Amino acid sequence: MNSSTDLSLPTGFRGIVANIGVKDSTDDLVIVATDGPVAASGVFTQSRFVGPSVLVSREHITNLQASAVVVISKNANVANGQQGEDDAREVVALTARHVGCEPDDVLVASTGVIGRPYPMDTIRAGFADISGQSWSAQLGDIARGIMTTDTVEKTSSATIAGSSAVVSGVAKGVGMIEPDMATMIAIILTDADISAEVLQSTFSRVADSTFNCVSIDGDTSTSDTAIIMSSGAIADVSHDAFESALMQVCTDLARQIAADGEGAETLIEVLVDEARDEAQARRVAKSIVNSPLVKTAIHGADPNWGRIAMAVGKVNDDDIDQNNVVIRIGSKELFPQQVSERELEELSSYLQGDEVLVHVSLGISSGTARAWGCDLTDGYVRINADYTT
Amino acid sequence: MNSSTDLSLPTGFRGIVANIGVKDSTDDLVIVATDGPVAASGVFTQSRFVGPSVLVSREHITNLQASAVVVISKNANVANGQQGEDDAREVVALTARHVGCEPDDVLVASTGVIGRPYPMDTIRAGFADISGQSWSAQLGDIARGIMTTDTVEKTSSATIAGSSAVVSGVAKGVGMIEPDMATMIAIILTDADISAEVLQSTFSRVADSTFNCVSIDGDTSTSDTAIIMSSGAIADVSHDAFESALMQVCTDLARQIAADGEGAETLIEVLVDEARDEAQARRVAKSIVNSPLVKTAIHGADPNWGRIAMAVGKVNDDDIDQNNVVIRIGSKELFPQQVSERELEELSSYLQGDEVLVHVSLGISSGTARAWGCDLTDGYVRINADYTT
Repeated sequence: MNSSTDLSLPTGFRGIVANIGVKDSTDDLVIVATDGPVAASGVFTQSRFVGPSVLVSREHITNLQASAVVVISKNANVANGQQGEDDAREVVALTARHVGCEPDDVLVASTGVIGRPYPMDTIRAGFADISGQSWSAQLGDIARGIMTTDTVEKTSSATIAGSSAVVSGVAKGVGMIEPDMATMIAIILTDADISAEVLQSTFSRVADSTFNCVSIDGDTSTSDTAIIMSSGAIADVSHDAFESALMQVCTDLARQIAADGEGAETLIEVLVDEARDEAQARRVAKSIVNSPLVKTAIHGADPNWGRIAMAVGKVNDDDIDQNNVVIRIGSKELFPQQVSERELEELSSYLQGDEVLVHVSLGISSGTARAWGCDLTDGYVRINADYTT
Repeated sequence: MNSSTDLSLPTGFRGIVANIGVKDSTDDLVIVATDGPVAASGVFTQSRFVGPSVLVSREHITNLQASAVVVISKNANVANGQQGEDDAREVVALTARHVGCEPDDVLVASTGVIGRPYPMDTIRAGFADISGQSWSAQLGDIARGIMTTDTVEKTSSATIAGSSAVVSGVAKGVGMIEPDMATMIAIILTDADISAEVLQSTFSRVADSTFNCVSIDGDTSTSDTAIIMSSGAIADVSHDAFESALMQVCTDLARQIAADGEGAETLIEVLVDEARDEAQARRVAKSIVNSPLVKTAIHGADPNWGRIAMAVGKVNDDDIDQNNVVIRIGSKELFPQQVSERELEELSSYLQGDEVLVHVSLGISSGTARAWGCDLTDGYVRINADYTT
């Protein structure tokens, strides 16, 4: 795996990043394009207050093909009524003209403040300004161009075993099904020749156990979007090897997102096993990783396993029996077997690290899942209390 | 309504409060008793990691009668295995002997740290020490005796219209279905002669729209318990007038609990109306009152209605249509009608008050519900990061 940000895009993709004055002087426009329609798939927020970018992208991806993705950062263009939808379609049209493709083949994602219309005059002027710009953006440029409150850019890349093809991705924000309003956007590119149908089913499966298992605060953005495109440049790639590389890249990005949660100082990974099934394991893992009391305990380096027990207990499934549950922090069992005072002190040191594992076994069957989140800190409160509408 | 803490208990009840050394020198034992079995009902946590106090109380209340309630504060006696259950039953037996009733008629509630056994030798000695103590506790003494991290005692009392009977209650902690680990305990006493069946159905209905609508952080305690007892001293009380007084007392206690949420500076009341039904209204109200982003925005006095829209949107019901939703802070509409910069500044002043109303209309039908919570502050993080296991 390579997280280097000066990687090129996979064969068959080109990118532009620019500042077109949406909010300030940082980059706020990203376009990734191919030389013609290619196989593509997307996963979007389940919010009922969804933005027009998501509506338009859902519409444009129904045929499982796309020629370009455009991202506007710093303004989510959500809750702006008909004007918002008109503006989203105009951004798509401007992108299509710039790329030289059909508007129907352009996907669009937005992230930023809600309820403020796009500055369309500025955006139109910005598209005119980039007309002569070369398509030279690297993976890291794209990752930086889609950032809002992120403190570091997030990229990941993996070679598909048995081939020269790669899967490369960028992401921003914090979550998917349960994300911060900072909105999660992920763009995954591969030069492996994967059919649209396989791309869709594989991406949906992988997103479910990676991006959908990231949770910063249980809130759900109006704009979350994850898109994958295959340029098809490299043939004869094994589907299993592709899924494995995709899982590696998406897991890596999911962990980077969790580690960069607003105010986060510690990445929390929760592993739940011996569940009835994967779905139950995921519910319990998310209940733990979302619990403000678990998150603050870890922030305080306090091995307070009682709060983990509480978070397991609030998943009110009849087959969860406290007499069969085992709770561990790192590899150390804390319940039912109790630890000594000295061991508690060692655990407190462990909890001061950058990364913490909570491992719960339910003693029911063999369902397993992981979830990722972060500690809850004074920094989270300050960032979100002081962020201005 | 009277929130004075030097109120006597309703006719037919007596109380003792004492320190018996469970943790420190503050009161940690509360007993409320009657002169024989009376009508009683209880509402308990839905947690799968429930403590033995809840298990024993559930068992003892199945016949809808009780003679006494005992509360041990500062130690929850949860996750202590068979020892924990034996200890809970011994506390019940000690209480029964002290009161002069059957152990089966004693209800027990506990609150405090998880996973630490009761100091039974100290507790036995404590019960011996109180053998000569008079039953002179007032409502306020009982409220203080059950406190853990509460910063103020919580009492409320109302006269039942058309009678001399009263409903008086005490509460501690923060929440019920979705409470902080500080655990919610409420004890409601009335001298009105209400049959056990009416007591149960009325209490269950009232608890559902009061205690069950308080949420501090979405976490669920292993020990939440709300108990009501009727001494039957005063006959011929109207059921409607009783329910109305009970609703008044429980609403008052619920609001006091929310206002005293850990680190809270502002009580948030969320009113959702025009929902499909009461259940949907409650889901939306709780989604808003639980949202860390809404809670931090209010803490920052930021009228960020986009976050309220987000919290409505994440209740993924097909009939919630963003085009029909109206969002208000206080009485001021913010969506779809937009407000001026000057009005936003006025709202910011409003949000700096002790109490804030968020009012959302869904435009579907006539379902209405309220929920109560509090802002999310640096104080919450500090309290919960520094609290020691």
